[in-house]
Amino acid sequence: MSHGAKKHDTVDGLTSGEAFAAAERNAVYRAIATRRDVRGEFLPDPICEEALSRMLTAAHQAPSVGLSQPWDFILIRDKETRARIARIFADANAEAAIRFPADRQAQYRSLKLQGILSAPLNICVTSDPKRGGPVVLGATHMTDTDLFSTVCAIQNLWLAARAEGIGVGWVSILHEDRVKAVLDIPDRLRLVGYLCVGHVSGFHERPELEKRGWRERDDLALHLHQERWTAPKPASE
Amino acid sequence: MSHGAKKHDTVDGLTSGEAFAAAERNAVYRAIATRRDVRGEFLPDPICEEALSRMLTAAHQAPSVGLSQPWDFILIRDKETRARIARIFADANAEAAIRFPADRQAQYRSLKLQGILSAPLNICVTSDPKRGGPVVLGATHMTDTDLFSTVCAIQNLWLAARAEGIGVGWVSILHEDRVKAVLDIPDRLRLVGYLCVGHVSGFHERPELEKRGWRERDDLALHLHQERWTAPKPASE
Repeated sequence: MSHGAKKHDTVDGLTSGEAFAAAERNAVYRAIATRRDVRGEFLPDPICEEALSRMLTAAHQAPSVGLSQPWDFILIRDKETRARIARIFADANAEAAIRFPADRQAQYRSLKLQGILSAPLNICVTSDPKRGGPVVLGATHMTDTDLFSTVCAIQNLWLAARAEGIGVGWVSILHEDRVKAVLDIPDRLRLVGYLCVGHVSGFHERPELEKRGWRERDDLALHLHQERWTAPKPASE
Repeated sequence: MSHGAKKHDTVDGLTSGEAFAAAERNAVYRAIATRRDVRGEFLPDPICEEALSRMLTAAHQAPSVGLSQPWDFILIRDKETRARIARIFADANAEAAIRFPADRQAQYRSLKLQGILSAPLNICVTSDPKRGGPVVLGATHMTDTDLFSTVCAIQNLWLAARAEGIGVGWVSILHEDRVKAVLDIPDRLRLVGYLCVGHVSGFHERPELEKRGWRERDDLALHLHQERWTAPKPASE
């Protein structure tokens, strides 16, 4: 790492600030609009190493607070390891079900919420709050900035995967400490995302929770405020 | 919101799981690779309303835990409001500078870290942990899942902006409570991202902190682990 104080150097090398051509712009919007949280459509087909490499490179190009790059990616293919994670999910999911109102528990249990074993690859994404040293530029006042950087990396990977025709499902119904023990993850790291990754039979046209009547998407307008926060809160609440 | 238990309905409507055509895929990767955290290159030109609408729609298409859509977007154009936020930044940034080792303080102070007043639009992005109700699907075990959803929305917006030729800079050197007071944001919401948004004279070819010698980008390989976490930690640490 260079500590040289180059404060007076000329910062050149700006590339054009023009918009993408319409076809390119539309491709970006297509990836964003058709990305899905995949649970049930994974195929066992192996993932092409070049595609996986492009996806991970995309993740690593995410913004990070103070250029701290707090993320790490654990690639898990071993079946026994995935089976251990699947058992952690099963325990957590059983606990989760009984927390819902009685009239929703059967519906909750009917939802498929992970593809840990059906996807050929799992990727555990961690965040290290100390990665940038004792003081990180941009992390001096607001908390959790390293987590935010790591989530940006995950979203990059997710969109890249969509362009590659590869599905990603983010599993959050897990006991973090048990997953960390299985994967030898040091205490200081946060488990941010546990991702199931693989080719798919297809992508749902709409988010599955919407399709299955669990919850609806709001109109964007309910989430927009002009100049300052304004009540009422979105109607879906 | 529909609470009907449709657990046995047929989930059809799968779209193709094929990869994008090469040109489309490359456009997605171009947005990811050339997105920058913009601080100094904002132009005062107004942002086209259609482009802004597309960017916000892209943000709202982000994944969210339990489809809770915890994000809100406050669009700030008023100069006096932005000046108040800029003063909060100035205070926080002065505090931040003295936290660095003596030999880095001058360099820190030389960095331009925000475009609050030079960008014509600021967007404050908040997250509401209660948006999905008392129990949110997927948020029963791991913490901060609503924040993660909101960050995915920000990254979608950031990439969409890049495709539109619009720069975004994320300002995190702020006193959260003071910003919330200026913008009337309720206590229960977290301030996740304060974004400066506008057309730019150009995008830096490389991240600015790298270009200015603050910190280098790691090789991706240092962030990859096979099957389980493995020391050593990335060399940049």
